[in-house]
Amino acid sequence: MDVDRVPVVAAGLTLELDPSIGSLTQRLMAGLRTGVQQGRLPPGLALPPSRALAAGLGCSRWVVTEAYAQLVSEGYLLAVTGSATRVRELGPAATATGATAAPVPRPRLDLLPGLPDLAAFPRVRWAEAYRRAVRELPTDLLAGRSLLATGPARHTLTAYLRRTRQVQEDPTQLSLSTSSTAAVGWLARVFGGLGHHRIAVEDPSWPGLRDAARRAGLEVVGVPVDDQGLRVDLLARTDARLVIVTPAHQFPTGVAMSAERRLALIEWAEQTDGTVLEDDYDAEFRYDRRPVTSLQGMAPDRVVLMGSVSKSLSPAVQLGWVILPQWLILRLVSDDLDRGVGPSALTVAAFATMVAEGWYERHLRAVGLTYRRRRAALVAAVAHRLPGCAIGGAAAGLHLPLTLPPGTDVEQVVRAATALELPLASLDDYRLRPRGSEDGPGLVLGFGNLRSGREDEAVALLAQALAESSRREPVSGGTASRRAAPSAPGKPRSRTAR
Amino acid sequence: MDVDRVPVVAAGLTLELDPSIGSLTQRLMAGLRTGVQQGRLPPGLALPPSRALAAGLGCSRWVVTEAYAQLVSEGYLLAVTGSATRVRELGPAATATGATAAPVPRPRLDLLPGLPDLAAFPRVRWAEAYRRAVRELPTDLLAGRSLLATGPARHTLTAYLRRTRQVQEDPTQLSLSTSSTAAVGWLARVFGGLGHHRIAVEDPSWPGLRDAARRAGLEVVGVPVDDQGLRVDLLARTDARLVIVTPAHQFPTGVAMSAERRLALIEWAEQTDGTVLEDDYDAEFRYDRRPVTSLQGMAPDRVVLMGSVSKSLSPAVQLGWVILPQWLILRLVSDDLDRGVGPSALTVAAFATMVAEGWYERHLRAVGLTYRRRRAALVAAVAHRLPGCAIGGAAAGLHLPLTLPPGTDVEQVVRAATALELPLASLDDYRLRPRGSEDGPGLVLGFGNLRSGREDEAVALLAQALAESSRREPVSGGTASRRAAPSAPGKPRSRTAR
Repeated sequence: MDVDRVPVVAAGLTLELDPSIGSLTQRLMAGLRTGVQQGRLPPGLALPPSRALAAGLGCSRWVVTEAYAQLVSEGYLLAVTGSATRVRELGPAATATGATAAPVPRPRLDLLPGLPDLAAFPRVRWAEAYRRAVRELPTDLLAGRSLLATGPARHTLTAYLRRTRQVQEDPTQLSLSTSSTAAVGWLARVFGGLGHHRIAVEDPSWPGLRDAARRAGLEVVGVPVDDQGLRVDLLARTDARLVIVTPAHQFPTGVAMSAERRLALIEWAEQTDGTVLEDDYDAEFRYDRRPVTSLQGMAPDRVVLMGSVSKSLSPAVQLGWVILPQWLILRLVSDDLDRGVGPSALTVAAFATMVAEGWYERHLRAVGLTYRRRRAALVAAVAHRLPGCAIGGAAAGLHLPLTLPPGTDVEQVVRAATALELPLASLDDYRLRPRGSEDGPGLVLGFGNLRSGREDEAVALLAQALAESSRREPVSGGTASRRAAPSAPGKPRSRTAR
Repeated sequence: MDVDRVPVVAAGLTLELDPSIGSLTQRLMAGLRTGVQQGRLPPGLALPPSRALAAGLGCSRWVVTEAYAQLVSEGYLLAVTGSATRVRELGPAATATGATAAPVPRPRLDLLPGLPDLAAFPRVRWAEAYRRAVRELPTDLLAGRSLLATGPARHTLTAYLRRTRQVQEDPTQLSLSTSSTAAVGWLARVFGGLGHHRIAVEDPSWPGLRDAARRAGLEVVGVPVDDQGLRVDLLARTDARLVIVTPAHQFPTGVAMSAERRLALIEWAEQTDGTVLEDDYDAEFRYDRRPVTSLQGMAPDRVVLMGSVSKSLSPAVQLGWVILPQWLILRLVSDDLDRGVGPSALTVAAFATMVAEGWYERHLRAVGLTYRRRRAALVAAVAHRLPGCAIGGAAAGLHLPLTLPPGTDVEQVVRAATALELPLASLDDYRLRPRGSEDGPGLVLGFGNLRSGREDEAVALLAQALAESSRREPVSGGTASRRAAPSAPGKPRSRTAR
């Protein structure tokens, strides 16, 4: 034990804290790190709850949660939702040498929705495209993060979207965003300025977009989804004249909106003078047929299409596009909402190069093939290992909804899976209202960032989690009439925005 | 005249519109472009007002304004605030060959505040730093646009800010943003959640930040500025407990906040349980002494420092930093406001490389020298050519306030200067309240993106504009008692956000 370190016992934990280190948070981090490295805090040890350790140390709980979070990110600790934070099994090198942050792998298998295959990010092409942008961008454009696409980038992106998504547009209607979340933010402000108070969203749906609308001052109203998509009849009973939908591939149920519903939705918009925000978040990926055409192409005056590269390249690129009716662009400009909120002009130019050189579509084809195989492997593994479960939705996108046997305690399953280092999300995480008696328990399996070749292993772990959770809390099993405990809508388990 | 073009006469203008071109906007753009190229619309010709031409064509005014805007951006037309849009003098090549968009230079001289020297953007270094980021960024971080800085980037940026701005921080307190405008947006939401309804700002001040606070739901209260900075005594009379200030170099008056005021401001924050948002927008550039230390370093629990590369590199980089007290970070995370709003992880890593390699500071030294010379040249030219005008504020930053002779009609001067292709801004553009009788007329000269070596030419043009405007509207001249016509706070004339 170093002479200059002070042993502290708090909440049953002995830590050596170095008083020469500035803040208590840093002292605690160093103490935990050293304890793990030197083996005094052995692998598997459950650390005290943050509240208890904070009380023992006489500090705010924040200090402890922050120290835990840092050590988790460094790989020394393992955070398990609903359970204690534990010391992680470290490689021998780290423990033996007492080295700094050991190169511990992140969770090996990851079924959380929200990310594309980050390992497939086209680093070489993107670096080259960006290099050209930095070299060639006219100096004046370096001023910019305009919403309005200009010059060659505008024409390239417009042509691409016309060809792949059948959008209808005038070149002037293409605007740019850093993400669809950001776009919903400024669109909600524009519509707020036009007298809108409410926005309807699909229930269930991705929380990021509805939260952005809420932050911009709109009240969010959930409208149920069935196997044809949004219940337009129920939408018409609200007084919202603005709605966010995912017609190509509903998130999270995976349904593609039926032709009847599409027509009904457009008719609703015409009759109410309403606007549809089409969240085209993963429409590039359809595995059984050509991608469904965009709703925007059917009613360009009523539909705003929002897309981004967050699911096709990476959220870190921070680039999206929005096809707006002309009156909305005009409004945006006249409301002075167009400045400072657009993407980097360098990023725009780099992406335009990716598209113009064909690199973007080549990338989409490559990852599309990966995703198709990955999905097929998951489907096969589920059929093999989870006989009581059913996969729903279209063969598309980067996630699939999994219906669990009636009566399954989903939260228990999620906890058990997370404890097995298989993070995943409950369908309930995306609901606005608690799950009703007519809704079965379900999971949303995101396979975008799952490693290829390990689908069966992931499903085997999931089967284990299901078995464990049913052992832990035996249910009456298989009676569809059993009312599932309504689960409060939790925080979404995904990490990124669109 | 081509056979497939249809001559249209509207509002006294004869245009050939090609019916094979899709939208009317595009047809109009093509018609105007061809008219200018072929000389049928001669240089200097005043085009009809958009309203009149729209009425003549039977279309919405939007179609015309958009077509004009496009042709202005292509260099065929010249937009003049408060006057007609005119056909521009084109180089002989463009008119002779009828080529497509001619390479017409942008306004030659530009005194609008808001931009750094874009021609000095370190393209080679930035491309290299970004290339390394794309190559080396750990795959997991490609998920990201977190607000929270992690890993080596955090340490590099923290050390840099500690050294150059004397900030006090724990590493966990550094957060990242795409811009200070974005940071004010999420900070205002956090404070709104804490029960704040109001935010005080300096009057005059940069409109971007206060607009962001307003959009996030806070009421904006202006507090006057004098030659020591914000009038803290008047701030104390409001019931705001949140204020945005520019202590290092007040925008736009150029004042550096006095030591007394700094202490009074911190005392105000202590007494009211208030928070100061320190907008450190151009503190890197001080020409007569070392940069003033940050307010944050004096009271890290009460002050949030916001900085960005928008003034040091380019707004297109989209990167800023915010030094937050720990309780605010905790609040941000617990309010779930930290996701999806941070900068690109690639940009963060690239900037960290710029800093770590010393390239960033080398760039700052180089442009700092340029700006110092440019400012000195402007000061000399003003002394020589504008004897009745006075330059105020510290020898710092990228702009200088210019007091005009009493009784000068500032709007008239701005219009005259713009007509001479010298865009600049009135001090009134930044006021919350109309200019009072005690305030003299003034301009804000931004020299960040002015070309070096042409300072005298710019001031000569400004002198011409002043002379023209006083000829146009003779005033009683020189009597300080003449009450300036209160000018409504206009739209800011700058193009970018922080």
